[in-house]
Amino acid sequence: MSEPFDSKLPHVGQLSEKEIIGRLKNIFGDLMPPSPFGPGDDCAIIDNPPPNSKLYATSDSVIMGVHFSPETSPERSGAKLLNRNASDIASMGGRPYCAITSAVFSKNLSLNWLDGFCKGLSDSASKLGVKIVGGDCASVKGDYFSMHLTMLGVSTLRPLLRTGASIGDKICVTGSLGLSFETGHHLDFSPRLREGELLAIDENVSACTDLSDGIASDILNLLPESAAAILDEASLPLRKFSGKLAKIENALTDGEDYELLFTYKGNPLRLSELFKSEGLAPISVIGEISPKGNFGSIILRDGVGNLKAFRGRGYSQLA
Amino acid sequence: MSEPFDSKLPHVGQLSEKEIIGRLKNIFGDLMPPSPFGPGDDCAIIDNPPPNSKLYATSDSVIMGVHFSPETSPERSGAKLLNRNASDIASMGGRPYCAITSAVFSKNLSLNWLDGFCKGLSDSASKLGVKIVGGDCASVKGDYFSMHLTMLGVSTLRPLLRTGASIGDKICVTGSLGLSFETGHHLDFSPRLREGELLAIDENVSACTDLSDGIASDILNLLPESAAAILDEASLPLRKFSGKLAKIENALTDGEDYELLFTYKGNPLRLSELFKSEGLAPISVIGEISPKGNFGSIILRDGVGNLKAFRGRGYSQLA
Repeated sequence: MSEPFDSKLPHVGQLSEKEIIGRLKNIFGDLMPPSPFGPGDDCAIIDNPPPNSKLYATSDSVIMGVHFSPETSPERSGAKLLNRNASDIASMGGRPYCAITSAVFSKNLSLNWLDGFCKGLSDSASKLGVKIVGGDCASVKGDYFSMHLTMLGVSTLRPLLRTGASIGDKICVTGSLGLSFETGHHLDFSPRLREGELLAIDENVSACTDLSDGIASDILNLLPESAAAILDEASLPLRKFSGKLAKIENALTDGEDYELLFTYKGNPLRLSELFKSEGLAPISVIGEISPKGNFGSIILRDGVGNLKAFRGRGYSQLA
Repeated sequence: MSEPFDSKLPHVGQLSEKEIIGRLKNIFGDLMPPSPFGPGDDCAIIDNPPPNSKLYATSDSVIMGVHFSPETSPERSGAKLLNRNASDIASMGGRPYCAITSAVFSKNLSLNWLDGFCKGLSDSASKLGVKIVGGDCASVKGDYFSMHLTMLGVSTLRPLLRTGASIGDKICVTGSLGLSFETGHHLDFSPRLREGELLAIDENVSACTDLSDGIASDILNLLPESAAAILDEASLPLRKFSGKLAKIENALTDGEDYELLFTYKGNPLRLSELFKSEGLAPISVIGEISPKGNFGSIILRDGVGNLKAFRGRGYSQLA
């Protein structure tokens, strides 16, 4: 196990900013283009996006003690930072283009730990073909580590927006739901990039978002005004863990599934087959958008068609 | 004075994430384009940069207790965040295009203080025509506030790089140097955007950077291998404060001048006149690039031509 804070181990406070950046450049290797296209000048010069493409931007961070624990492997923590940004790009149907980081750490942060974090970030970036074009670091007191990443994405496809769903559309989700923390899924997930591209190509997909706070929160962003989501209990793709299934309550509220939640006009049967043929995450049709009745915004439907309101709430960073 | 942490005052922990974002949208007003071009979807859709333009990216943060103190006015602290990023864009000869923020705060952060910070950020962004297209926030324990900003810039001019200077080039600087902290300049400076554009237009400008860590550090980024910087003591534009002048040592090492430091082939007399006619920051020719001798990389020259090594070092975040 790698101990993040132990001033008896080699730690960042023993190196200059230049030495730290040099060390990280070494870890990132080919992922950091040479200056001025990568770190080394006052700004990075970003390659112009291909003609007729759209440019997307998103920013997400990981903070030790919030998004991962001091005991989490630094490699998995670094992978999470890269992949949670890529998940936002995926939910627009884009592909990752480049990223800029901003790190904050206390001087007693172990160099070995930081190396591991950057290795995890770097390996994930490499898998997705994302260049790391710049960065910034600052030190604070106490035991602290956070890294903030801004990712740019590109796409020549239409953007998959949160708006666009209508009453009658099916509600669909990729992969499995719930138990993200218990199973380590929140660290080890793969952003649904190819899935997002295929959704953007299929014009029957009316709206899309990625699941970061749990369906109970995230579905609200897709619902038109005066609409509710009816979810079929039996259709929810509950995650399995040690022979047990996630409970419905957890599957809807745990958060950090990093799956794509989308609405579809008609039956996504052919899309589902296409996903299968490409070996992608399976699509589950989990319900439909209906006019809002007396049950609030989220309604559970059991096997014989009985409805009941779902009052659980998704994860909130500030609650 | 606005007290940042006082849980008896209205504080961020009393609001949901949505409520906080709504509050900030209100402060930012027209600076935040409607979704999906601004906050509200999974990514912001960035307007395509104009044809034949280059896209620049930079990231800088401000952390309470590091880049400003808890007693600093929140408005000035927010302005600093925006302007220090814009200074990096200026040093490439670009103009600011859009920005994405990432905030971290403890739940006891005063809402009034946060409003003030965002007001300062917003007013500065408005002055420079920068849209705030997205953001992210997370909460931590303790008394904490940081905001990280990634700024994109555009330019149809050549990029002003740090590389390109040769032996014999004059060393020039805009504005005044030193006492940035004592005078509050580090909070209240104006990024040298128009100045940077004019430098990019003038082909005799061979290299440029902005002064964030002090000339003693930043000049090293402009020096070709085996070259040194000779600085004329009498030519340094020392900042005045309460009737006193900054000392040479301070002027070279204080940091956070946020002026443009550039090298020039020949005499920048016409450029200097152009700056004057536009009411811009004055240009001082402060020395020249020479072959490296026995005095190290930075050499002071007094009024009668005597040389001595300058051993002072600029500001380092991690030292």
